[in-house]
Amino acid sequence: MVAQQPRLLGTVENELGIRKWLEDQGHTLVTTSDKEGPNSTFEKELVDAEVIITTPYAKNLKLAVTAGIGSDHVDLNAANKTNGGITVAEVTGSNVVSVAEHVLMTILTLVRNFVPAHDQIRNGEWDVAAVAKNEFDLENKVVGTVGVGRIGERVLRRLKPFDCKELLYYDYQGLSAETEKEIGCRRVEDLADMVSQCDIVTINCPLHESTKGSWLVNTARGAIVVKEDVAEALKSGHLRGYGGDVWFPQPAPKDHPLRYAEHPWGGGNAMVPHMSGTSIDAQVRYAEGTKSILDSYFSGREDYRPQDLIVHKGQYATKAYGQRK
Amino acid sequence: MVAQQPRLLGTVENELGIRKWLEDQGHTLVTTSDKEGPNSTFEKELVDAEVIITTPYAKNLKLAVTAGIGSDHVDLNAANKTNGGITVAEVTGSNVVSVAEHVLMTILTLVRNFVPAHDQIRNGEWDVAAVAKNEFDLENKVVGTVGVGRIGERVLRRLKPFDCKELLYYDYQGLSAETEKEIGCRRVEDLADMVSQCDIVTINCPLHESTKGSWLVNTARGAIVVKEDVAEALKSGHLRGYGGDVWFPQPAPKDHPLRYAEHPWGGGNAMVPHMSGTSIDAQVRYAEGTKSILDSYFSGREDYRPQDLIVHKGQYATKAYGQRK
Repeated sequence: MVAQQPRLLGTVENELGIRKWLEDQGHTLVTTSDKEGPNSTFEKELVDAEVIITTPYAKNLKLAVTAGIGSDHVDLNAANKTNGGITVAEVTGSNVVSVAEHVLMTILTLVRNFVPAHDQIRNGEWDVAAVAKNEFDLENKVVGTVGVGRIGERVLRRLKPFDCKELLYYDYQGLSAETEKEIGCRRVEDLADMVSQCDIVTINCPLHESTKGSWLVNTARGAIVVKEDVAEALKSGHLRGYGGDVWFPQPAPKDHPLRYAEHPWGGGNAMVPHMSGTSIDAQVRYAEGTKSILDSYFSGREDYRPQDLIVHKGQYATKAYGQRK
Repeated sequence: MVAQQPRLLGTVENELGIRKWLEDQGHTLVTTSDKEGPNSTFEKELVDAEVIITTPYAKNLKLAVTAGIGSDHVDLNAANKTNGGITVAEVTGSNVVSVAEHVLMTILTLVRNFVPAHDQIRNGEWDVAAVAKNEFDLENKVVGTVGVGRIGERVLRRLKPFDCKELLYYDYQGLSAETEKEIGCRRVEDLADMVSQCDIVTINCPLHESTKGSWLVNTARGAIVVKEDVAEALKSGHLRGYGGDVWFPQPAPKDHPLRYAEHPWGGGNAMVPHMSGTSIDAQVRYAEGTKSILDSYFSGREDYRPQDLIVHKGQYATKAYGQRK
């Protein structure tokens, strides 16, 4: 057996690589995955915790850090009202490159029909025609992204040298004219209008007649699509391919239809577990970011990066999570 | 069963989509895959052929067209000496974009550990840590290409927005200073020197101690590497991954070690049949290119694209195939 990868920082065993650094400063670090029920290690230790890295509250709690991104598991209104305002912070941006790369990989894997081709090899077969009949180039295709935030913009930048026919995006807020020109992309005001022009749609979109013959990549949220509808669209050949790493629910149960749905010609499925933001490189970034947040807190400087703060001093510090009541 | 893809032009059935066009001009088109032995359709029809699309010679033969690229199956010296000089032409450049895209797909698939992750999904499993421990970002990696011709340069251009640490290349002929600056890449004079600096090496390189921990992508020729050595390097974890679409011999026999070799953590193999230049889009390009070569010939204009000519009027028209004696 191969030893646990020491760079896999996002595990209970490796503790983000910060135990020594914390203990050298006189802090105590407790790490546990025993968190179910009133007698769990978690519940016992939580009582006296001053800082928590992910999850609920305790009477001394002042700082809750999400080691990565996505603080929607935290009750932010409760955080604002507890202990005079708990600071909730996350390592903003730590996964955006990883997810953008995952999107590019998924697009190429689907368009170039990788999965059934690789299966042939592993199964001792060789039939180029059977896989080439559904293998295309990304060049000269129309690609649209739904959402052009930190990930969507990075996807468009990475698509630029592939000489796509057009790069489109749909978002409530547009890129600057300068950025649009630099990337060579164009905003489409209406989502259905954009989707109908695309060979490839990334992130998410409502399933629509006009996606016929398209590839769809979703790295946003599994619940954005109706899984049974996507599976049917793929099996009927309406969709040419579906890929991504987000599922509803998560982890995906064994009978989740998007595990097994395939195009009538085989392939067309590039689904993986929720891993796009969990690369070793992303884990290094979020471990470093977590350490930096802890250092801001313990040093008393409280010089957090503004983009990392979700709630702070009893107030929302970001609009990303809405102003939940 | 799904009907044969009508856009799959590179098959006997679809005949590059040129039957009607040829017959309208009064020509006869014979297509066959029965080419073994003296009584085969091929041998019978070859006797009176004036133009051949791929393979040997006949007494009236004036033009031999490779529908795609790679005329190394043609005896070019014989072509120069036969029938007053047979013209050998190919559709230069028809596959370069397809192969460059395949290289990018293979790099991303290996670096981001796609195959075992997708296998988990299909097998009803979910274990992010098991796949994330060998999942990396392409960002900040050093990528080197051996050979910076039409494909190598396109690979480098497509890598540019991924913000790699460095883009290196090794070739007997360098890019212009202007192109180097535009892409942001650097030439390394010594192959071993380049390989030792790389996380990812594309195209080909002799297996070397300094490839330790690297990913290797080969879309050039299967025989460039010693397959048993690559398989061993992968199984021992010396190589992190190997991928591409070229094999020796081809088609790969069922017991070819590179079909089944895996990294000790699983995955690390992104091999597919020889398909990277056979996408539907590439087939359209080489069918159009073949038609254009035929039109130049039948019209008597003989206005071939210079880059498509391999031998012409009893002379070599390219240096790509060497001046074979």
